[in-house]
Amino acid sequence: MNMRRGIVFGHIDFERILDAVKKSIEFAVMTGIKPLPYHIGSFITCEEVIHFQKMGGHVFFCIADLEAYAINRIPLRESYKISIDNLADLLALGLEHKRTYIYRQSEFINVLKLANIFSSHVTKRTLEAIYGERPFGHYMSALIQAADILQPQLKEFGGPKPTITPVGADQAPHSRLTRDLARKEVFRREYGFILPSFTFHTLIRGLDGSDKMSKRNPRSYFAIDEGEDSIVYKVKNAFTGGRETAKLQRKLGGQPEICPIYELEVYFFTRDDEKLRRIYFDCKNGDILCGEHKDEILRRILVFRKDHLKRKRKKLNVAQRIIRGNHLYG
Amino acid sequence: MNMRRGIVFGHIDFERILDAVKKSIEFAVMTGIKPLPYHIGSFITCEEVIHFQKMGGHVFFCIADLEAYAINRIPLRESYKISIDNLADLLALGLEHKRTYIYRQSEFINVLKLANIFSSHVTKRTLEAIYGERPFGHYMSALIQAADILQPQLKEFGGPKPTITPVGADQAPHSRLTRDLARKEVFRREYGFILPSFTFHTLIRGLDGSDKMSKRNPRSYFAIDEGEDSIVYKVKNAFTGGRETAKLQRKLGGQPEICPIYELEVYFFTRDDEKLRRIYFDCKNGDILCGEHKDEILRRILVFRKDHLKRKRKKLNVAQRIIRGNHLYG
Repeated sequence: MNMRRGIVFGHIDFERILDAVKKSIEFAVMTGIKPLPYHIGSFITCEEVIHFQKMGGHVFFCIADLEAYAINRIPLRESYKISIDNLADLLALGLEHKRTYIYRQSEFINVLKLANIFSSHVTKRTLEAIYGERPFGHYMSALIQAADILQPQLKEFGGPKPTITPVGADQAPHSRLTRDLARKEVFRREYGFILPSFTFHTLIRGLDGSDKMSKRNPRSYFAIDEGEDSIVYKVKNAFTGGRETAKLQRKLGGQPEICPIYELEVYFFTRDDEKLRRIYFDCKNGDILCGEHKDEILRRILVFRKDHLKRKRKKLNVAQRIIRGNHLYG
Repeated sequence: MNMRRGIVFGHIDFERILDAVKKSIEFAVMTGIKPLPYHIGSFITCEEVIHFQKMGGHVFFCIADLEAYAINRIPLRESYKISIDNLADLLALGLEHKRTYIYRQSEFINVLKLANIFSSHVTKRTLEAIYGERPFGHYMSALIQAADILQPQLKEFGGPKPTITPVGADQAPHSRLTRDLARKEVFRREYGFILPSFTFHTLIRGLDGSDKMSKRNPRSYFAIDEGEDSIVYKVKNAFTGGRETAKLQRKLGGQPEICPIYELEVYFFTRDDEKLRRIYFDCKNGDILCGEHKDEILRRILVFRKDHLKRKRKKLNVAQRIIRGNHLYG
């Protein structure tokens, strides 16, 4: 769905993964998420990961606690707690934990070792060119991220093998750095890395009309386990592609292409393409007003919320056991 | 002996250790040595560590394989092999492995985690100011070294507690960086570090008259397990503080203060102060010529070598078991 709808708008070497699927070659799906409460935008990456798992991929789920510390100053203890919640969300969305390797950056020697080795083969100039002038810890995070992406290819995991990492459009520089490291002669010889594949997805608009949902801006998103009232408030007050008056909208029609409510449908809440097309034209033709659409989608959001939270509650114990035990295989 | 003779010529907060000894408070002795074959100069740090162990210190012996990789490009596999040899040397010199915590940087999550956390609290500017313009990996090594020095103070090891780290004079900047990190409010609150103590020792002159024995310059040192012939050759051809002719030396006397052969006596081969004084004045007064002195010390070097290698051979199995098993306590 994500590809069909252009949410995934680009890739590097995705053919390699399609080929692996066709020939039943083992491949890994890498995803690293900073332990911050998931919002509805985060679910998009989660769904993509689950999709690749269903295609036969072996999932590596990295809890990026060191990155969250370096960039968002979230204490490791805090990350630990949040990551249980994140994992429960993922399991509720359909991730099979039996076929997932789950680890925290701060507790996984392979990744830190690899990141340190990488640090000897990259210049400050390169890092500055890619990321700009940043605190020292941010550069180190970038190398840890590269290590996260390449470690499924270590011998310990039956590597080298094709890997796919779905990332947001903003992560393209990381993918370049990682591929540049992977292709270095010294690492080719030592690890024989296959150049990692990436898909790039667009970022969902913020509810308040901002460019993207961002955890730094609470009005831009809702989290699925936010209180009902809060979700209702945020959606009802969301920016839309509507006109100044109802009359004008009936005449000119709405503008779904700039509307975050319509994007909620595209990214998540309307699976059926035919239905989505109907919503688009109902809006475009002025047959439905923003208030009506908001009420209608809210009903579906709240039903999804209820079902998801029920599934999530059932998964919390497993999630806790996996994270607490620092279990690698769940 | 090292302090009496001014080999250890300076310190920071050494009083804290003397106080710990007096009051029987637990303290740690930290030493991290890059896995390169030991030369006679390396033995000086080893002896200091053993001395502190005898005073009651709990030794942390770090095999700095990541640093050796970053700075000397020694592959981790190679480091692994050399470190067995290093440890056997240390045990032969008298280190009690039962009271030593032995680890490789590349296999010890505590240190890498701490180094990464530190990386978020140090600026590139600081690192550049201390170390100059260096490859990115060197900076990371410096942070790992700081983590090596501070990790004995983690709760896992019953910290915080006083620690002493004997270092060469050239390592003073490291000690400053480490103390600056330790005193940061954020780490004080999280870990309660006691500011680490350091002793600084001078570096023994190179046999070829260069400033210091250096592994990069094989004529500057001998290793104790070098072949006898090679040691004899290097000592016989060593630079000395002698005069142009025997006659002149009988008249003016030698110059022990610039003589690497005399330094061998001071640093290692003459334990008895009275004997050392005799050697000094015999040289100074022209009563002994360089050739005679070299022959004489060579006899003692070769006896020490034989005994040491015998002791070392007996320790190789233990050393191998400890390193191979990645045993932390031997």
